[in-house]
Amino acid sequence: MGVKRIMAAESAKLTAREAARRIAEGALTSADLVAACLECIAAEEERVQAWEFLDRDKAMAEAEERDRRRQRGWPLGPLHGVPVAIKDIVDVKGMPTGNGTPIDAGKRPFVDAAVIRRLRAAGAVILGKTVTTEFAYYHPGKTRNPHDAGRTPGGSSSGSAAAVAAGMVPLALGSQTNGSVIRPASFCGVVGFKPSFGAVPRTGMLTLAPSLDQVGVFARTIEDVALAELLMGPDGQDVDALESPGPLSGTALAEPPVTPALAFVKTPFWERADAETQAAFSELGEALGEQVDEVELPEIFVRGAGWLEGVMAAEMARNLGHYADRAPHETSEKFRGLVADGRAMKAPDYLAARDMRRVLRDALGPIFDRFDVIVTPAAPGEAPEGLESTGDPTFCSLWTFCGLPAISLPLMTGPNGMPLGVQLVGQYGQDARLLRTARWLVRTLSGEGNE
Amino acid sequence: MGVKRIMAAESAKLTAREAARRIAEGALTSADLVAACLECIAAEEERVQAWEFLDRDKAMAEAEERDRRRQRGWPLGPLHGVPVAIKDIVDVKGMPTGNGTPIDAGKRPFVDAAVIRRLRAAGAVILGKTVTTEFAYYHPGKTRNPHDAGRTPGGSSSGSAAAVAAGMVPLALGSQTNGSVIRPASFCGVVGFKPSFGAVPRTGMLTLAPSLDQVGVFARTIEDVALAELLMGPDGQDVDALESPGPLSGTALAEPPVTPALAFVKTPFWERADAETQAAFSELGEALGEQVDEVELPEIFVRGAGWLEGVMAAEMARNLGHYADRAPHETSEKFRGLVADGRAMKAPDYLAARDMRRVLRDALGPIFDRFDVIVTPAAPGEAPEGLESTGDPTFCSLWTFCGLPAISLPLMTGPNGMPLGVQLVGQYGQDARLLRTARWLVRTLSGEGNE
Repeated sequence: MGVKRIMAAESAKLTAREAARRIAEGALTSADLVAACLECIAAEEERVQAWEFLDRDKAMAEAEERDRRRQRGWPLGPLHGVPVAIKDIVDVKGMPTGNGTPIDAGKRPFVDAAVIRRLRAAGAVILGKTVTTEFAYYHPGKTRNPHDAGRTPGGSSSGSAAAVAAGMVPLALGSQTNGSVIRPASFCGVVGFKPSFGAVPRTGMLTLAPSLDQVGVFARTIEDVALAELLMGPDGQDVDALESPGPLSGTALAEPPVTPALAFVKTPFWERADAETQAAFSELGEALGEQVDEVELPEIFVRGAGWLEGVMAAEMARNLGHYADRAPHETSEKFRGLVADGRAMKAPDYLAARDMRRVLRDALGPIFDRFDVIVTPAAPGEAPEGLESTGDPTFCSLWTFCGLPAISLPLMTGPNGMPLGVQLVGQYGQDARLLRTARWLVRTLSGEGNE
Repeated sequence: MGVKRIMAAESAKLTAREAARRIAEGALTSADLVAACLECIAAEEERVQAWEFLDRDKAMAEAEERDRRRQRGWPLGPLHGVPVAIKDIVDVKGMPTGNGTPIDAGKRPFVDAAVIRRLRAAGAVILGKTVTTEFAYYHPGKTRNPHDAGRTPGGSSSGSAAAVAAGMVPLALGSQTNGSVIRPASFCGVVGFKPSFGAVPRTGMLTLAPSLDQVGVFARTIEDVALAELLMGPDGQDVDALESPGPLSGTALAEPPVTPALAFVKTPFWERADAETQAAFSELGEALGEQVDEVELPEIFVRGAGWLEGVMAAEMARNLGHYADRAPHETSEKFRGLVADGRAMKAPDYLAARDMRRVLRDALGPIFDRFDVIVTPAAPGEAPEGLESTGDPTFCSLWTFCGLPAISLPLMTGPNGMPLGVQLVGQYGQDARLLRTARWLVRTLSGEGNE
């Protein structure tokens, strides 16, 4: 029993790629892997509270079915038998979709979201649904930071980030409309990757703000978040998801042909960053020496976060305002305030703000002509204490607004020993190059780059 | 001289396809054709007032250059040497773009619009710029109806429709945000074709309401409007023009494989149609017998024109409101009213209205499952008397809003002997099938279908 337990804990800590490789080789069964994950959840869930819905028997049955397919010699997808956690705003057939609100309690979708169909096609086992904030906006769910249960895991993809950080699952799906993947990845010390806007179709997910909503993934390695390529490409329904920057793995796992150049961007919100964060980024800059230059954004970016907030308020009022009307007392004050703000916004002002997405994206052209990626904080600092807030998304706002691919890498530690993410931002559509540069950065900082 | 004049008048009346064929064969030069068109313009322009800008020498020089290319054995495009008239909201390098407003007088673009580049690539001679209403909205320009100079030619593509109707040019470009191609085609007795939304990129044209703005063409035959296929396909800039329903000619010029079925739709605005128009459509229905069934639109379509007006007001306020601010006294009261309406609209109401485009389009699915096209009036009646209004676009609003391909066929005559168009509307993206059915209808009504 003792040995088995150790083996289980080890399995649960495998990366998604390593787990898939072992399952494909017959060195591990999907059933053993899923059982190991469920064991880890049983041990940690009371403290972490990452899950909104979990059906252990169903998950085991799905794993066993994956094992039977392999035994029968069926062709195996790249995630065959690997469990994946799903943010509870994504429809999974046979599971409720809670959207972080009591108003949707018991709602059961009839069909899988596009991303779920693609995960299943790749062989993944859909393990369960993870906690989201209310409507994937600010009002927190029950999840705690696995590194310190008295601190927020960040939001809105709170449960997905925490589940990966706690070793409950190697891969989890999230979404980002402002800072909902990069921020919790930073707070929980995992790798969070948000591909370019439009790379992943959002069909079958809660619509917050279609001009901003973007799918993201959490994992423990850059190699694993590159599996987001399995989710990419048009699905014929999401009119914003018409192209794919993938495949990612080929480029992402390769060496850069020349040493990358990084643009360190403080953003107009630099004074919001903790003194420790500011100091940590100075150190990072020194460590990278001539590979990094500090670059100032054009003046116009000062207004970027405000434009994102306006677009978000208007579109969320349009898409989710009916919840505030139907059951105001079951919604948060913060959400009702957003709906009121969105309803007060004038249509031409909304359109003008939305048009700035392209203007700001184009304005970054000269930076991406000279640099491979932008380096910038993922959050103002480590996860704040308390569970009443999910922290400040501002360091994500500009990049989300422009729809640029972004990744948070758990490379730093804050003054209280909590994780602190380094955010890399790539040019639009250059998702693979972003991941390749991210791998280079990790190897360089660990000293491997000097070999 | 007399013979030459007759020949010239004859050349000017050629269809675009026939002219291109004769030029390619060496039976006609582009210079002779353009000279013939200029002669017709010289004779008719004082009465019709179709042109905003015309440089005779430049046009002749362009035609002669086309003839030289042919003589040198260069490959010829499908419009080689054929003159085309351009609505004065489309940028043509070397010509001013007036946009129907004194505020833009003297504005000269540096580059051709995407459609102009494509016309030139096909060998066309850009003859000149035709009169548009103010900002392609309601306030009329100087153009008169060639069939009765006391009546409006319709708008906003007034000059393009009138130029083709007067025999000044075989092909003209227009645009439609509500009823700006189909209505003037009906009033002027020419064929007007507005392809599916997004089929033709609008790069380099005045932006009114990007959710609604659609390019269209005027000609004397269905075969000629099928040349709109030359304008279709992504240009890498217009994010709404990502696919092409073309090529059109193959299908459009073929026989229908089975006898088409037509849905006669009165629309919720039937009472706006003249008694004579109503009677004419009854007769049309009788003539077509069992090929046509009257179909009622779902109840929700009652609100369609209002949604279009809301989207149009909000987007035009966003894109053109600055004109009303900069030079209010040089804008019309109607335009300023539109800007005020758009500025008063709330963002979520705008978004809700815009989302209805897809809802209404999808709601027509059951009709297009059973019928090839919808048959409906192009306008409430013949061109109204007077030049202070361009007439009522309401019979176009629903189809423009849904982005469906539509054509106006000059098949009827009103009580005063003025032309009256029959509008056919196709399923989204089924532009070729629409044109094929239109040809079938014309042949059937002329008795050829019974052979």
